[in-house]
Amino acid sequence: MNLDKLRNITRETHEINIDPLQTGGRIPEATKANLVTWLDGYSVCDFCPGSLFGLKTPPIKLFIEEILPEFLGCDQARITHGAREGKYAIMHAAARPGDWIVIDANAHYSSIVAAERAGLNIKKTERTPEPEYLITPEHYKNAIEEVEDETGNPPALALVTYPDGNYGNMPNVKKIASECHKHGVPLILNAAYAVGRMPVSMRELGADFIVGSGHKSMAASGPVGVLGTTEEHAENLFRKSRYYPIKEVEMLGCTVRGMPAVSLMLSFPYVQERIKRWEEEVENARWFSSMMEKEGIAEQYGEKPHNHDLLFFVSEKLYEIAQDHKKRGFFLYHGLKKRGISGIKPGLTRQFKLSTYGLKKEELEKVINAFLEIIEENKSLLNSQ
Amino acid sequence: MNLDKLRNITRETHEINIDPLQTGGRIPEATKANLVTWLDGYSVCDFCPGSLFGLKTPPIKLFIEEILPEFLGCDQARITHGAREGKYAIMHAAARPGDWIVIDANAHYSSIVAAERAGLNIKKTERTPEPEYLITPEHYKNAIEEVEDETGNPPALALVTYPDGNYGNMPNVKKIASECHKHGVPLILNAAYAVGRMPVSMRELGADFIVGSGHKSMAASGPVGVLGTTEEHAENLFRKSRYYPIKEVEMLGCTVRGMPAVSLMLSFPYVQERIKRWEEEVENARWFSSMMEKEGIAEQYGEKPHNHDLLFFVSEKLYEIAQDHKKRGFFLYHGLKKRGISGIKPGLTRQFKLSTYGLKKEELEKVINAFLEIIEENKSLLNSQ
Repeated sequence: MNLDKLRNITRETHEINIDPLQTGGRIPEATKANLVTWLDGYSVCDFCPGSLFGLKTPPIKLFIEEILPEFLGCDQARITHGAREGKYAIMHAAARPGDWIVIDANAHYSSIVAAERAGLNIKKTERTPEPEYLITPEHYKNAIEEVEDETGNPPALALVTYPDGNYGNMPNVKKIASECHKHGVPLILNAAYAVGRMPVSMRELGADFIVGSGHKSMAASGPVGVLGTTEEHAENLFRKSRYYPIKEVEMLGCTVRGMPAVSLMLSFPYVQERIKRWEEEVENARWFSSMMEKEGIAEQYGEKPHNHDLLFFVSEKLYEIAQDHKKRGFFLYHGLKKRGISGIKPGLTRQFKLSTYGLKKEELEKVINAFLEIIEENKSLLNSQ
Repeated sequence: MNLDKLRNITRETHEINIDPLQTGGRIPEATKANLVTWLDGYSVCDFCPGSLFGLKTPPIKLFIEEILPEFLGCDQARITHGAREGKYAIMHAAARPGDWIVIDANAHYSSIVAAERAGLNIKKTERTPEPEYLITPEHYKNAIEEVEDETGNPPALALVTYPDGNYGNMPNVKKIASECHKHGVPLILNAAYAVGRMPVSMRELGADFIVGSGHKSMAASGPVGVLGTTEEHAENLFRKSRYYPIKEVEMLGCTVRGMPAVSLMLSFPYVQERIKRWEEEVENARWFSSMMEKEGIAEQYGEKPHNHDLLFFVSEKLYEIAQDHKKRGFFLYHGLKKRGISGIKPGLTRQFKLSTYGLKKEELEKVINAFLEIIEENKSLLNSQ
């Protein structure tokens, strides 16, 4: 067994990272020294009272009983392995195999796979056509009624992605929740790209469940996530074991029994501050989008004006270069990398997404200039030249 | 919202830790510098090919396709959030709600809760009486036949804990597997306290599934675990999504999308070396047990001679002191802590477990001496004095 490749595995990072998966998950430099003290396996269990959620040291009990519910606008909250694990727990607890769930057409694959794992039938909503791909309350109404027509019953659950991970579209959750509730359907809010980036209140939005992602948007070392719900749904979702009265069945007793749980808490004061700057983040995203279009680099798809840092672009120009470039589509990835920029998937040119979250205006300018320089370098490959 | 308690959360450790949960999960000092480069959320996804298990950088594909199967003695392996999440995935994939599972009487609570989450009926085996509490092949035979008698069918699954987390007993898995297979019952090996401490081969032991724990026994920063199975069972356990052909349903697409996955790999060369010293570890445990008994501190329950570092003790003497001590049962915890020793749960005196894993002989002597000093200090509280 040759183990050389396992030795000294080190991550190389670039000056600027615009990967939507990663812009909201960078941990604050200041937490690192503390985090290192929690690296050992089961480090959080030194003072185990029988359940992770009862821990006073580190203060997980305080975090889930007081801080998270207030932050998420919910009655009860837990720490999970991530948004997808939270969604699966909800679906498994609140529905039975063979039940139906309505999911928006822009949903993350993990919502679909979670529903599949829970044995649910999936009814996807429609969405408005290219280039916006909006999800509306009407789409939910139609999808719910289709399930009712086909099965005689409303779906067991609905899920909305807020925002979705492709276009960064922010659907009107309040109206969607109201539509769902008219039909007696509880609504799951997948806020993996919202909680920790911007203010989000499950209660104000009218949803029945909320999931967030620590590693995606709460500046935490993952995998770790958050899960919240109402008192009404908590009883079933957090039901205790028949055999071990202190252990919650859907949480398998304890969830994040290690450093990521501490990371979520250590980063929390920073996260609570940064969400106050959300309007500025949206302004930056809009400015970036307008520059990409104004400079003729690419066209932004999805909602306009945009309301989130996650942006989807379509570029016929970059795609045209890729056709004749000796690196094919990889010229863009390498061109950006050479300029200290990472986060656009290797090979992509015609369609790509990126995030402006947490980047300074000068950094965003640097990204725009990098695109312009790369196009300039390759202008001989453009037919229009 | 007062966030003061979330600031500067730091773990305080003691010189010697004998908590069975923690002795096998300490990460090698040498990996820390590398680990810190992976702290950011979704750090492992820089070069995502669409699935965690296909990653070449960091080398997760190599690890799960070549290294882990050889190490575990299985055909296919995956990285999971931990042993319990692996057990649940197996039970959810290989059985249907209402099916039966036979589980040993010494099983960890998470095996029971995983079965409960999967909607399974649980038949516990018997065990031999106090003080040994052994699990035998005969116990499995009886439990399986009881299920057959009661339901007309064999159970869908069986699970054996190797060793269990209370007594550190090592059942004869080969014979248990053979008993299960006679009845057509696939066997899950819960090796959370074995894989990473000692050589374990699923194939040699004849089990159909194996789970291990990175944070418990593989010197990894958790939560993280391993899961292995045969080609026969892999097809169903690792089945792909109907909607996303690259995503595995029971893994929810990707499992440990963060630093713990890297920790498992970085520690692996160290783990592979240390398991070669297993006989020495067993010798140390036996020596420690004999000293506890010889010095009249406590009696060891469970298998004798013992075959694992996890030891369960019963001490009437310490319990007697607790009756009249002003700190009640907490005198032991505080007395050990004062001497730089942690890992016995606060308050326990009559029955407690500990682990000698990875401790040097001098450290074990120090623990024995600490017990003796604590008894000596409190001898006026012993009736027999």
